[in-house]
Amino acid sequence: MIATKNLVTLFTETRSKTEQLCKPLEIEDYVVQPIVDVSPPKWHLGHTTWFFEEFILKHHKPNYKLFHPDFAFAFNSYYESIGKRVVRTDRGNMSRPGVAQVYDYRHYVTNELKDFLETIDISKEIEHLLLMGIHHEKQHQELLMTDIKYILGNNSFQPKYDDHFIESTTEKEKFKWISMGEGIYEIGHTNLEEFHYDNEIGRHKVYLHKYEIANKLVTNAEYLEFIKAGIYNDFNYWHAEAWEWLKETGISQPMYWHKIDENWHHYTLNGLKPLTMDSPVKHISYFEAFAYAQWKGCRLPTEFEWEASQNNFKWGQRWEWTESAYLPYPGYKKAPGAIGEYNGKFMVNQKVLRGASVVTASKHTRPTYRNFFHTNLRWQYTGIRLAK
Amino acid sequence: MIATKNLVTLFTETRSKTEQLCKPLEIEDYVVQPIVDVSPPKWHLGHTTWFFEEFILKHHKPNYKLFHPDFAFAFNSYYESIGKRVVRTDRGNMSRPGVAQVYDYRHYVTNELKDFLETIDISKEIEHLLLMGIHHEKQHQELLMTDIKYILGNNSFQPKYDDHFIESTTEKEKFKWISMGEGIYEIGHTNLEEFHYDNEIGRHKVYLHKYEIANKLVTNAEYLEFIKAGIYNDFNYWHAEAWEWLKETGISQPMYWHKIDENWHHYTLNGLKPLTMDSPVKHISYFEAFAYAQWKGCRLPTEFEWEASQNNFKWGQRWEWTESAYLPYPGYKKAPGAIGEYNGKFMVNQKVLRGASVVTASKHTRPTYRNFFHTNLRWQYTGIRLAK
Amino acid sequence: MIATKNLVTLFTETRSKTEQLCKPLEIEDYVVQPIVDVSPPKWHLGHTTWFFEEFILKHHKPNYKLFHPDFAFAFNSYYESIGKRVVRTDRGNMSRPGVAQVYDYRHYVTNELKDFLETIDISKEIEHLLLMGIHHEKQHQELLMTDIKYILGNNSFQPKYDDHFIESTTEKEKFKWISMGEGIYEIGHTNLEEFHYDNEIGRHKVYLHKYEIANKLVTNAEYLEFIKAGIYNDFNYWHAEAWEWLKETGISQPMYWHKIDENWHHYTLNGLKPLTMDSPVKHISYFEAFAYAQWKGCRLPTEFEWEASQNNFKWGQRWEWTESAYLPYPGYKKAPGAIGEYNGKFMVNQKVLRGASVVTASKHTRPTYRNFFHTNLRWQYTGIRLAK
Amino acid sequence: MIATKNLVTLFTETRSKTEQLCKPLEIEDYVVQPIVDVSPPKWHLGHTTWFFEEFILKHHKPNYKLFHPDFAFAFNSYYESIGKRVVRTDRGNMSRPGVAQVYDYRHYVTNELKDFLETIDISKEIEHLLLMGIHHEKQHQELLMTDIKYILGNNSFQPKYDDHFIESTTEKEKFKWISMGEGIYEIGHTNLEEFHYDNEIGRHKVYLHKYEIANKLVTNAEYLEFIKAGIYNDFNYWHAEAWEWLKETGISQPMYWHKIDENWHHYTLNGLKPLTMDSPVKHISYFEAFAYAQWKGCRLPTEFEWEASQNNFKWGQRWEWTESAYLPYPGYKKAPGAIGEYNGKFMVNQKVLRGASVVTASKHTRPTYRNFFHTNLRWQYTGIRLAK
Repeated sequence: MIATKNLVTLFTETRSKTEQLCKPLEIEDYVVQPIVDVSPPKWHLGHTTWFFEEFILKHHKPNYKLFHPDFAFAFNSYYESIGKRVVRTDRGNMSRPGVAQVYDYRHYVTNELKDFLETIDISKEIEHLLLMGIHHEKQHQELLMTDIKYILGNNSFQPKYDDHFIESTTEKEKFKWISMGEGIYEIGHTNLEEFHYDNEIGRHKVYLHKYEIANKLVTNAEYLEFIKAGIYNDFNYWHAEAWEWLKETGISQPMYWHKIDENWHHYTLNGLKPLTMDSPVKHISYFEAFAYAQWKGCRLPTEFEWEASQNNFKWGQRWEWTESAYLPYPGYKKAPGAIGEYNGKFMVNQKVLRGASVVTASKHTRPTYRNFFHTNLRWQYTGIRLAK
Repeated sequence: MIATKNLVTLFTETRSKTEQLCKPLEIEDYVVQPIVDVSPPKWHLGHTTWFFEEFILKHHKPNYKLFHPDFAFAFNSYYESIGKRVVRTDRGNMSRPGVAQVYDYRHYVTNELKDFLETIDISKEIEHLLLMGIHHEKQHQELLMTDIKYILGNNSFQPKYDDHFIESTTEKEKFKWISMGEGIYEIGHTNLEEFHYDNEIGRHKVYLHKYEIANKLVTNAEYLEFIKAGIYNDFNYWHAEAWEWLKETGISQPMYWHKIDENWHHYTLNGLKPLTMDSPVKHISYFEAFAYAQWKGCRLPTEFEWEASQNNFKWGQRWEWTESAYLPYPGYKKAPGAIGEYNGKFMVNQKVLRGASVVTASKHTRPTYRNFFHTNLRWQYTGIRLAK
Repeated sequence: MIATKNLVTLFTETRSKTEQLCKPLEIEDYVVQPIVDVSPPKWHLGHTTWFFEEFILKHHKPNYKLFHPDFAFAFNSYYESIGKRVVRTDRGNMSRPGVAQVYDYRHYVTNELKDFLETIDISKEIEHLLLMGIHHEKQHQELLMTDIKYILGNNSFQPKYDDHFIESTTEKEKFKWISMGEGIYEIGHTNLEEFHYDNEIGRHKVYLHKYEIANKLVTNAEYLEFIKAGIYNDFNYWHAEAWEWLKETGISQPMYWHKIDENWHHYTLNGLKPLTMDSPVKHISYFEAFAYAQWKGCRLPTEFEWEASQNNFKWGQRWEWTESAYLPYPGYKKAPGAIGEYNGKFMVNQKVLRGASVVTASKHTRPTYRNFFHTNLRWQYTGIRLAK
Repeated sequence: MIATKNLVTLFTETRSKTEQLCKPLEIEDYVVQPIVDVSPPKWHLGHTTWFFEEFILKHHKPNYKLFHPDFAFAFNSYYESIGKRVVRTDRGNMSRPGVAQVYDYRHYVTNELKDFLETIDISKEIEHLLLMGIHHEKQHQELLMTDIKYILGNNSFQPKYDDHFIESTTEKEKFKWISMGEGIYEIGHTNLEEFHYDNEIGRHKVYLHKYEIANKLVTNAEYLEFIKAGIYNDFNYWHAEAWEWLKETGISQPMYWHKIDENWHHYTLNGLKPLTMDSPVKHISYFEAFAYAQWKGCRLPTEFEWEASQNNFKWGQRWEWTESAYLPYPGYKKAPGAIGEYNGKFMVNQKVLRGASVVTASKHTRPTYRNFFHTNLRWQYTGIRLAK
């Protein structure tokens, strides 16, 4: 269990970190929503704040006065239990509340919550909700960064976020296959004292057959071979649904790649740069990860294979697509009420990603962490680790 | 012909008026595009500036240096002749160039053009282009106001634009029919020295049969009767296409009307207010105007009937839907080049509106002015004058 | 007024003609609806029958027994007044009632109506409804032919309808412009004893300026020049809406044209044939007719110009697109009840076509007849006559 | 291995069975495609025939003459390797080839193949292709029945297929939970001599935790309780994606259910009948199966749980939705060439169903058989078996 003081520190640090991530933005950047998946930064700032107000202050702090009666409508995301909300596709149409007012809202709620925490003995329930809110905000810190990248990277002026952000590190090890033996493995979160989500508990046994898994991620150079081999035009390597998707979208390279006068570039948070060949490929869909693996005569690991072997390789630069569908672990029950809407209701037609990325918040991942996205999405820092 | 000095004054006043209209906005309001027809105010500011840069400075001012090489891409609207441009639906996804930079762009072009005009003898061609640019900007002043109203009025917080804006004046006259005799009338612009668009020249004769036209516009109170009579649910009064449109959109009242606790309100630029019963109805589509007229056993006037009789009534509060399709006058030829894209290419599947509205720029209308919109659009200040 | 005997003859001949048109069909051809505008032949057979049952027999024949209580649901087209009906897009999904049963329905209603007519003194009202039904069926005879052509011509096997159908005749006259003087012309139907639709009455004066109109239609050879000149790729000649339509659909030639090994062919009711160069172009949209005229430095005539000059040229091979929007004539009132749904509710966003085509039923057109279609439609036998 | 004689018998019986299933149809019923998932019966007849022609006769029978050079275009389903084909949504727009010609095609290919088989020693390869073709046709026999049901059951006349078809049998056993112990189970096809698909081989171990599985299927009466409890309107029991789907489609009951004067009916192949309360519910989506299980405080079994326990209960009336996503078994490799397009390319975003239904062809299922459909589909005979 975490001491109160540490908990308050964790809370204030998280709150302040989110705001720090937005420092390089112009006010205009806070407002836009170029595609439905990308929320305006202003909305992330408000939504993470609303979570603390709605689930803690409103119900637990005596005489708490809402910052504004209509902000729940503006900043609820998808909690059906909580009532009406701005349609998701409309987030980018709301010029008000303005950025300054959203910051006021943040500071008001941060202070109210600090006050509250300092005056009470933190109960198990409050601690749980608080940690939930903190990790919810950390999760949004990652989305904030990928959404900012999308907003700037899809602007025809290709403005940079800053000069120093490092999106990739070269993995220096030589490629090798790690061999894993057949047998029963235990999967799922164990240390129940530590923070975790409901989708990763239910520690349970799985039987794995002999497999091999790569010690490092597929690089840009390797992915370029895949492009040059013409695989984007060869249906043999793609799922039927992926092939339709390619024809509809015209996609033929990772998101943010640009070929300029025969030289490959990619947009990064530091602006448009020549493609770095030895860094791990990023911003690809599951469909592309799968096709790449097919073409190499390999496959993607399952999430169980990944978890069972993850001690043997470095990870953390990219969210790694697995072959596993996002499904409940044995014995999974969703929590009652709105908090229960967090994970369970998305357990269909999505794929699990394991690991973490360069924009994952500190302490917001672990070997049992289950991230999940639809098979066509690319704006996250996603990558490929092969298995066979 | 206009003296140079007057022309420069007209130019600088127009430029400054546009900026004055934006004074009450927050930076965030400049950015959003809630529906495809509504452009971000920032875009209007840039686009009207680009017009002067593209059509005058770039081609006529010696050694003119573009403010930014990519701004043409960002601020071209629909001129196919000029090259690529941001897709219309993407205008609200562009956070950059920011508002401050757009104002810099404006001031740069305004000054460059003033300099240019002061150093030359203004040729007929330059005068024509300049007047074109000025009236183009005046036209965008009206769109700017209707777009601002849409942005604020569709925000769930219903923020006001300012406290003083007057959208409606009561027409004090008693209703009466004005009778017009059968015969030949002359239609179209006459004073070719005065500024005009190419769609209104070609003064020509039309034969009109006896008709009567209302001396005043349909009021909110009268339109409310139409609603109460259940006509939004009675197909008999609607075009087949209108009936489909009603079923798809669920529309059952003018845009910006809200029924709150059994009392009708409307959003105005001064905020949400009780509906003023005796002001002219506004923000209705052609479909609704037509159905209203049908229900009253009347019809809408043609644009020729309107023009022939307009001396006999007051107009200027609302753009008045006519029964006329937007078509070329006899002898109409579109101008060569990009300037020719202004009017002719829209002459299909739209309706003519006559008059002016409370947000029409000063001196930007006249009895022969032909405005035009698609039959389902409502975000302009549109109204109804009956005929029979 | 028409003698009873003649009326009965006209009725039975019309009924029998419709069935004769379907003779070459296989049962399968009666069922399909490849696009929403094209109805299954079976539906035309049923719908024209339902019209007589619904508007005459049901209300006027004592003790008339409906053929089947649910056929009104299956065969109503768009009459909101009459009640629910199969959604238009679903017509091709209804395998029942089968073709044989639809013919039974036809014969039942034909016989019942003949019986009825023979036992009564035909009142003015019945005569009007009967003529309405007959002309309604004649109109559907034309649609039947164009729908059959679409069904067969869009089948990859390109089956022929028969061997003898003549779609085009060469217009032997040398091209010349017919000059028409300025002045007042009378427009609209005159002989009110003769059958006519409500949209063509209201004989009225229009003032026409001097114009010239072509004595013959644009030929395939001439249209081919337009294609070769690359005008399908040059936005300058197209309406903005037309340009969008071209980009969406990829259209670059008239419907039914195919380029096979560098030689142009067209699908006709006799099967796929080499393009006949001197026959009038057909199956083009208003958008294309307009662009062609622009490219020739001409324009399309208005419907008034067409009517005023039609005595001076041959017409009847193609429906000729005019520049006129489909609007009510002065004094137009739609009839009360379902019959009134026939014309008025379509008077928006469509264009008038004048003349007739090779598949127009005998005696189903006249100089004042106003046909109308949306600007993008091409499956009718449409053509181009130039004016200037 | 199967003796040649038996193989030829199996082939001819299968061919003849397909035609027998179509006996009750009118010609019109063969043609229509009311939704994209439902193919015209005529297409099933042709497509199953094309499979034998394309994969056996064309490549293996000396001097084989194609029945028609364009039939491959008409009857290929989704084999990208084989070349162009009629777009899936267009199958219902093709009136030709007609039903009689498709039967000619069937008989030609059946006879050519019988001739061929009688003159050769059947190699392993031919045997494999032949069995593939036979089972492919058996699979289409099931689709044929569900498509016929859809075509007739969505026709407003609700015609029956025949009088004798039995869609449901009451499961007489009392409900009980079957308990299964924790441990390693072997999953996948074993008898490689027997026909099987590539998706079910790769016999492998899985570790299952203790679970209980129902001995019988959920009944109509039980499902009615779910409806009466208002669960179709309570988001708590649904996946987020399912909730969107409910709102879009307005679905609130199984496919083919109709409430008439307060009494529940369902359309069956014998026509519209009062709902039989004790038969197993059918025509529900995975979304509904999942929500039902949630509401009962249970869950759906995984496909492994189902296979491990299937000896302990009767199955075969309904395809039973499982919680398992359709994924490759360990070591799965898709076959090279067109045959490899059969299964692997669909292994994403679908759910596994186990068991069989009342319209599954004889000998076309087994305990290891893996059926799969998208989560929203309902036109198959699908049902629910609970687990916990």
